[in-house]
Amino acid sequence: MSALKNDRLLRALLCEPVDITPVWMMRQAGRYLPEYRATRQKAGSFMDLCQNPELACEVTLQPLDRFPLDAAILFSDILTIPDAMGLGLYFSEGEGPRFERPVQDVAAVRALGVPDPEQELKYVMDAVRTIRRELDGRVPLIGFSGSPWTLATYMVEGGSTKNFAKSKGMMFDDPALMHDLLGILAESVTRYLNAQVAAGAQALMIFDTWGGVLSPRDYAAFSLAYMERIIEGLVRESEGRRVPVILFTKNGGQWLGRMAESGCDALGVDWTTDLADARVQVRDKVALQGNLDPCILYASPERIREEVASVLDSYGHGPGHVFNLGHGIHPEVDPEHAAVLIEAVHELSRPYHS
Amino acid sequence: MSALKNDRLLRALLCEPVDITPVWMMRQAGRYLPEYRATRQKAGSFMDLCQNPELACEVTLQPLDRFPLDAAILFSDILTIPDAMGLGLYFSEGEGPRFERPVQDVAAVRALGVPDPEQELKYVMDAVRTIRRELDGRVPLIGFSGSPWTLATYMVEGGSTKNFAKSKGMMFDDPALMHDLLGILAESVTRYLNAQVAAGAQALMIFDTWGGVLSPRDYAAFSLAYMERIIEGLVRESEGRRVPVILFTKNGGQWLGRMAESGCDALGVDWTTDLADARVQVRDKVALQGNLDPCILYASPERIREEVASVLDSYGHGPGHVFNLGHGIHPEVDPEHAAVLIEAVHELSRPYHS
Repeated sequence: MSALKNDRLLRALLCEPVDITPVWMMRQAGRYLPEYRATRQKAGSFMDLCQNPELACEVTLQPLDRFPLDAAILFSDILTIPDAMGLGLYFSEGEGPRFERPVQDVAAVRALGVPDPEQELKYVMDAVRTIRRELDGRVPLIGFSGSPWTLATYMVEGGSTKNFAKSKGMMFDDPALMHDLLGILAESVTRYLNAQVAAGAQALMIFDTWGGVLSPRDYAAFSLAYMERIIEGLVRESEGRRVPVILFTKNGGQWLGRMAESGCDALGVDWTTDLADARVQVRDKVALQGNLDPCILYASPERIREEVASVLDSYGHGPGHVFNLGHGIHPEVDPEHAAVLIEAVHELSRPYHS
Repeated sequence: MSALKNDRLLRALLCEPVDITPVWMMRQAGRYLPEYRATRQKAGSFMDLCQNPELACEVTLQPLDRFPLDAAILFSDILTIPDAMGLGLYFSEGEGPRFERPVQDVAAVRALGVPDPEQELKYVMDAVRTIRRELDGRVPLIGFSGSPWTLATYMVEGGSTKNFAKSKGMMFDDPALMHDLLGILAESVTRYLNAQVAAGAQALMIFDTWGGVLSPRDYAAFSLAYMERIIEGLVRESEGRRVPVILFTKNGGQWLGRMAESGCDALGVDWTTDLADARVQVRDKVALQGNLDPCILYASPERIREEVASVLDSYGHGPGHVFNLGHGIHPEVDPEHAAVLIEAVHELSRPYHS
């Protein structure tokens, strides 16, 4: 594979010195880009797009052709694993992802197998290989997965939920069954992420979108414990470099100290936590990724620059910061505003690395 | 008015000794009760129910007739103030509350008046008076309002939102306009709550449902500052007793220390924060109300009792704890499970007060 021309992201994730703060955006390949919408239309459904390696590669690279981003992230969905388990993923307008066959009892949990990433999820690995080839060493490629707890909520609920009635219902009423489900998912995620690394992913991120709806005790037992198990099982070196792992629990600001002990290299942080406080919490043990509120991209370029400056200042001097939004970029955002953000990060971050 | 027969709630909110931990449940008058559903059907729409003092009183008292709760809470909606401002509140199936005339520019903010609680919101004050009469001193009555920031999000968005695109857009792009709007709302909420006290409310709660979607800096400036302004303007004594004020920011666990400085008497805490940690954060300056995950009510009676014991234990010994859920009770919950919760709190809390 081509030598990496821009390794700022990998260096920052390992708290190594960089010239300027690297930046990428969650959902940077997405609906706010007209070229994404065009490819999406060409592909058919959202899952058709995910399952077509050439088109998944095309949308992965689109934001990199527009902006001087420091990373690419695999275009895929967090629900590929449950889909590969045979749950029948589909997307219904206005309702988000749904499963034809939710997992709500012992029999359904027992029937679950661990998918072979190079079989049932080969389309993801093919996308990783295609993207790496097309990236040609411009920037590193981030692979990812949903966390076991996050995947379990969708699988038990049969889709998105506001109350987590069924998934928390299972957790509280039959914790052993929920642990069985989470164990199968942890094993599946481990294999899935290791296969992504084998296919060419150079960093990994675990999205724990729904860990933040748990109590501290339940977060530790039902979400963090399984992410730790995954991290233990991950291949941490590839192509002669360490493969950094980023853990991101949305609304996990109260637990950053514990998360930093998980064995990961970096933590994603949303905007409800100040990066200065987060840095104290993790005692510079891990790098931090974040944390601009994506709604700031609705404001004027001047305000966006001010807020970028404020986030850079809250992290302060020294290595270990990857600039990102605290959540995915919204579909209504003007791409020119994303350009302002990225330029501002590169321009304004230099003094923090001297 | 009748002498108060059970003042545990008022005493606990002021950190005074009690025999057992008082308990009430957010949305205790609600859809999980068949008798509520019957009254709701009789009333017509949800707002018809809120605007009918006799029926609002009827549903307020329903849970008290079933369970030995230690407080009643006024049955009403958090959006009565914007409705009284002329925004045209309505409820659409599946979408939640909507406003016919959202507030999205300078002209719309300038056109807003501060409602006179005994005129435009007289139906609320009539409900308070009716409930007090019918309560006959059984337990204290809690009055409430939404926080200015929470009301502003609905008013600017025109209803519920996931992204807060318009409300945060205004906050980031035209902060002066958002401050104008919040100033009018703070004045309106102050008058509204003082009128509830004059009509008979014996404790007050401010629901800051959406303060937790802000950054720490923006929470302080756009939500907490206006709640502090309200608290400064509240009448704090009535019928010869202090009227305690409870502040509840959902997902505000990271800011409890700051909230405790607001002049309030108690903080609502959701289940993402351990009460022992919360108590350290607020240094016993204020009482704490919470914090059982309402999803625990889907579990078996045995599990509910275990979890009640765990919450009581996390708060520990001494006064200043009001038991509650960390969020409203869900509509699908079996009322018998609520009974188990309430009985368990009373039974298991005695040793913590000896």
